[in-house]
Amino acid sequence: MWIVPVAGGVIAVLFALYLIRDILRRDTGTDRMREIGDIILEGAMAFLKRQYRTIGILAIVTAVAVGALVGLVGGDLKAKDLAGKEIVTSAFQVGWMTAIAFLLGAFCSALSGFVGMYISVKSNVRCASAARRGLNEAVTVALRGGAVSGFLIVALSLLGVTAIYYAYGGAGKPFLAPHLIVGFGFGASFVALFAQLGGGIYTKAADMGADLVGKVESGIPEDDPRNAAVIADLVGDNVGDCAGRGADLFESTAAENIGAMILGIAAYLFTGEVAWILFPLVVRGFGIVASMVGILSVRAKEGENPMNALNRGYFVSVALALVGMALAVFTMLNKDGQGAWLFAAGVVGIVTSIVIIYVTQYYTEARYRPVKEIANASKTGPATNIVAGMAVGFETTFGTAVVIGVSLLLSYWLGAQTGLPGGGFFGTAVATMGMLMTCPFVLAMDTFGPITDNAAGIIEMAGIGGDARRTADRMDAVGNTTKALTKGYAMVSAGLAAFLLFQAYMDRVSILQGKVFDTVNFARPEVFVGGLIAVMLVFVFSSLAIRAVGNTAGKIIEEVRRQFRENPGIMLGTVKPDYARAVDITARAGLRQMIAPGILPIAVPVIVGVVFRFIPSYDAPQAVAALLMVGTIGGIMLASFMNNAGGAWDNAKKMIEDNQLKDEQGKPIGKGTLTHAAAVVGDTVGDPCKDTAGPSLHVLVKLLATITLVLSPLFIK
Amino acid sequence: MWIVPVAGGVIAVLFALYLIRDILRRDTGTDRMREIGDIILEGAMAFLKRQYRTIGILAIVTAVAVGALVGLVGGDLKAKDLAGKEIVTSAFQVGWMTAIAFLLGAFCSALSGFVGMYISVKSNVRCASAARRGLNEAVTVALRGGAVSGFLIVALSLLGVTAIYYAYGGAGKPFLAPHLIVGFGFGASFVALFAQLGGGIYTKAADMGADLVGKVESGIPEDDPRNAAVIADLVGDNVGDCAGRGADLFESTAAENIGAMILGIAAYLFTGEVAWILFPLVVRGFGIVASMVGILSVRAKEGENPMNALNRGYFVSVALALVGMALAVFTMLNKDGQGAWLFAAGVVGIVTSIVIIYVTQYYTEARYRPVKEIANASKTGPATNIVAGMAVGFETTFGTAVVIGVSLLLSYWLGAQTGLPGGGFFGTAVATMGMLMTCPFVLAMDTFGPITDNAAGIIEMAGIGGDARRTADRMDAVGNTTKALTKGYAMVSAGLAAFLLFQAYMDRVSILQGKVFDTVNFARPEVFVGGLIAVMLVFVFSSLAIRAVGNTAGKIIEEVRRQFRENPGIMLGTVKPDYARAVDITARAGLRQMIAPGILPIAVPVIVGVVFRFIPSYDAPQAVAALLMVGTIGGIMLASFMNNAGGAWDNAKKMIEDNQLKDEQGKPIGKGTLTHAAAVVGDTVGDPCKDTAGPSLHVLVKLLATITLVLSPLFIK
Repeated sequence: MWIVPVAGGVIAVLFALYLIRDILRRDTGTDRMREIGDIILEGAMAFLKRQYRTIGILAIVTAVAVGALVGLVGGDLKAKDLAGKEIVTSAFQVGWMTAIAFLLGAFCSALSGFVGMYISVKSNVRCASAARRGLNEAVTVALRGGAVSGFLIVALSLLGVTAIYYAYGGAGKPFLAPHLIVGFGFGASFVALFAQLGGGIYTKAADMGADLVGKVESGIPEDDPRNAAVIADLVGDNVGDCAGRGADLFESTAAENIGAMILGIAAYLFTGEVAWILFPLVVRGFGIVASMVGILSVRAKEGENPMNALNRGYFVSVALALVGMALAVFTMLNKDGQGAWLFAAGVVGIVTSIVIIYVTQYYTEARYRPVKEIANASKTGPATNIVAGMAVGFETTFGTAVVIGVSLLLSYWLGAQTGLPGGGFFGTAVATMGMLMTCPFVLAMDTFGPITDNAAGIIEMAGIGGDARRTADRMDAVGNTTKALTKGYAMVSAGLAAFLLFQAYMDRVSILQGKVFDTVNFARPEVFVGGLIAVMLVFVFSSLAIRAVGNTAGKIIEEVRRQFRENPGIMLGTVKPDYARAVDITARAGLRQMIAPGILPIAVPVIVGVVFRFIPSYDAPQAVAALLMVGTIGGIMLASFMNNAGGAWDNAKKMIEDNQLKDEQGKPIGKGTLTHAAAVVGDTVGDPCKDTAGPSLHVLVKLLATITLVLSPLFIK
Repeated sequence: MWIVPVAGGVIAVLFALYLIRDILRRDTGTDRMREIGDIILEGAMAFLKRQYRTIGILAIVTAVAVGALVGLVGGDLKAKDLAGKEIVTSAFQVGWMTAIAFLLGAFCSALSGFVGMYISVKSNVRCASAARRGLNEAVTVALRGGAVSGFLIVALSLLGVTAIYYAYGGAGKPFLAPHLIVGFGFGASFVALFAQLGGGIYTKAADMGADLVGKVESGIPEDDPRNAAVIADLVGDNVGDCAGRGADLFESTAAENIGAMILGIAAYLFTGEVAWILFPLVVRGFGIVASMVGILSVRAKEGENPMNALNRGYFVSVALALVGMALAVFTMLNKDGQGAWLFAAGVVGIVTSIVIIYVTQYYTEARYRPVKEIANASKTGPATNIVAGMAVGFETTFGTAVVIGVSLLLSYWLGAQTGLPGGGFFGTAVATMGMLMTCPFVLAMDTFGPITDNAAGIIEMAGIGGDARRTADRMDAVGNTTKALTKGYAMVSAGLAAFLLFQAYMDRVSILQGKVFDTVNFARPEVFVGGLIAVMLVFVFSSLAIRAVGNTAGKIIEEVRRQFRENPGIMLGTVKPDYARAVDITARAGLRQMIAPGILPIAVPVIVGVVFRFIPSYDAPQAVAALLMVGTIGGIMLASFMNNAGGAWDNAKKMIEDNQLKDEQGKPIGKGTLTHAAAVVGDTVGDPCKDTAGPSLHVLVKLLATITLVLSPLFIK
């Protein structure tokens, strides 16, 4: 049974290596292009090195602290085997196992982010060069460059979970091992949070800083080489969108694997079949193959919208995912004919991954009502633009909530029809697996975004015009769309994964307390206050994240101004600005700003759990459960607002730039008008929302789930 | 025992009559002032008439529908008396009693809003006239004008609840009557929601419309008589801030009374003392007296900040409220020495009402860091102003959550020390009562806002300068502060009242199900989805409310433009614009826009409850409980963001206008700069947040509580 996940993981790694070789041997264009590419690479690596050093120190401290706390203060872990015999794992052992799993999860997450981003930066210049020759080659380079990160992430998550599961006795004690490996998920979310926050702060601060000091103050165009912040801006696209979202989805897949395995224990104990526990790993293996074929099948015809090519590839992956799901379900879980119900649940998940893409498109593309509404509101100035964008953003919670709600209720109902104990929950787990099967493909599309964005920037800076430029610009526009869609996908999968992990939390508390923990007394004030703190947490976290962008942008603006002032040759174009210094200052400032919002979601659940544990007459596990559930809901809804409002503001501006907005006489209102200026305000406001706070909130939601899962022994009297 | 509430209510009515007489006999200034005052009065009355007609029709339809549903589909109400004997009230009887209570609550709410606003509008012109003679007289007129509405609201709420409690058998079956009068609270929140929404949409649409077409497009000053929308703007202050907030707090007091009485039943059944049920009414009676003395004690010294005078009066009320609380607790609830604990809980509530005022001041006044941060961010344009304001707004949820959380946990703990069944909950109820004791005073301060705002407008339009103008402007600034503080107060009291009503919901479901309902299975998907829908509801509601303001403002802008175009004499000052038409168009458009956001929070709980009732294997009361709790939390937190961000944006703009923001050379950056223009954008964005969506969210939270309470029979299988 372990063959499929291991084979899947190894195939994914080999495929990533093949893609790396394919990309690296492609031509790197002119000297000027190579030069710019090298500067971006250098900047990105400098940032990552610095970031990973910070995260590494924080991770080691956290691993030791968590291990010590769980080992010394937590209780023993008692689980029953098939024969009903109680197997005890001492608290001490749980402690060190958790700490090691944490470090492994953190390491895998960091590694996949690092390698993926390295290749993505190497792909930029090759994509730019390919754009000179035609669309298909450029799309292929960008997508394959993105796929490296996608496949490595999923492979490392799968191999990591499989390895630690067996290392912690999965072969002999399959009902116990999932509880011992939860640290892996916590480690992954820990790194994901800081990677997403640090990258998100960096990218948007560089973007805002470059725009404010370049376009607004000095009147020079975007990506102009005289602007010292322009390289920082290009670097930012890689560290934010690519490394950040990669860590985010690494975490989703790891958390989903572990959560689903824990849920499978109930069915295992009932049926005696270990297949129920290993099933998630097998499904993930099939998902890798499905995504691989999808990626290889993408062919862009010259002249067509590259989005259509990506969509065709995605549907190939989806079709194969359906086949893989059917294979896995009917060979592994069909002993008593439950296969059909579970397969249907898996289909619900796969369909969800498509529906959310259409919902996101509706809210963020210029073809539909919401973006048009914002563009129209820009005619009366920035205030009405902002108000319209807020209204649209709030409205988008409807689509997100309906997609998640219907998917959960339906898959639960389908799972419950199997009649197995915990069958309903297993149904939601299968749906989540189904949704995440195409994760490597979606990640490839996501990283497609920063690669094409950078390629367009390199072409601009290298002074190349004509067809290459038009090709690059068209791909850049598609990249913006794919980035928005991935956020919708990541958000919904975070919601589903969090629901899984919530079940896992209840299961784990039941085991630790030695009695079933499945109800929470809503009438207790600590439960109400736990929920109140949860929503407060997501708001305050967003506040810190947004403010961090503003503070960091201030530092870059100061630096670019200083360079202009002290070296008048820069503006004349005779002297090159000091890009490296601007990159370095942004990195330092951004990483400092990442600490406070990063610590908050780790500290709050610990404080709530420990404080209520020690106040008599309050029940800490219940308060933490409320924190977890209400925080998940609040986080997802606020992320939906942030991501979609930001995307809609962005596209309302683009709609005006593309001359698609008309005045009363039917004449286009284009760039340079007051309407366009108003739309630029909305775009700038949306940037930290959609690229810093919003994506960080997905990670926060999953971090809340994994941290409470790992630290639950501390909350129990 | 019923003497105190009845006496309190009658005293409050007599006091209001005395104030009305005192105000009406004061002088009404020059002919021009009277003329303007009359136009405002006419516009306000025309709006209210139209609004109440719409609300009246909706209320009658709702009353019939609710009565019929509860009477025909709901179950019988079975409650045990002191001897343990079961008393059954038929579903049919519950149905018609609920419908009548609903209509009475709706009527009282509408009446108190109407009379209060009528007097407030009458006070405007008298306050303007008094401002010509000095500060103290003007403050006295404005505060007394506001107090009319404050006292009438609390009196009608108290007399209404007392009357219907006895009418529904409170003397003979005190343990049953509170359950029969819940319709009163629902009726009150029903009217409050539409009053707040309609008024809020009207006021901000008129404000935005008048500014955009007057200040921005035509370059004429604020409150300029040539602007056809200027009267609509002045009318808006009355119908939004005065009638809207009045209905909001009417609802808080009514809901708190009923919720606390239901909670008192447990202690009544245990001790046999009906005092536990009547206690909330008695405390409210003492609160009225405390507030009355406070109002009468306000004396503003010439030259001092009027805020200080109001603060002194408020502290007099608080001191007397403490005495009243002590009297009530130690005479009524001290048989077995529990008085000290409950008194302490009451003190927690009274202190909470003071603390939230300081917290709100910190977030919204120019003296402190948050507003300064926004003002500074305006230097780099509107985008950074908006981002800074959002960051501040999100941050303010911290203060709100801590105040509500500490107050609940502390008062619960104190109540639990009495050792009575449900003692903890009763402790939170006593705290809520303590907080709401000073409600009439707070309401008077709130209505002080629109009165002084209107007085300043009348003085401007009547062309009066000199000392009168300076006095009016200073009072106007204080009025802005008191409006912001009242919102903080209303928000926290909504949170506490909602927690009470949540208990009441659990109690009522227990009675209807015939078994204790105190836990909710968080692991059930319908519970998670109920919570998800709840947060989605508050976001979508805010979206609709904000959008309604934009749509309505568009109609006014069209109308003013039309008048300017068709009648060039208006701009020259030779012809008067048609104010009435602008008022009428705003009213029509605003009321049409109020329907959709108003229906939403009524429809959603009904749909959730009824749909889950009819799907097998799902548990509707649990899903509704999650909807209620998570919706309350989400609503309060989002309201905190909206109210405080709006207030902070407003004051950041004022800080710049007062020349308090300095550039790098230390020179003030004042009106007319780009920085000021950026701050104006923030102020405009904040307007619909703080005066439409935010305050409507408080009402929504309480409406969710009362509607689920009333309709709970429909959700039970």
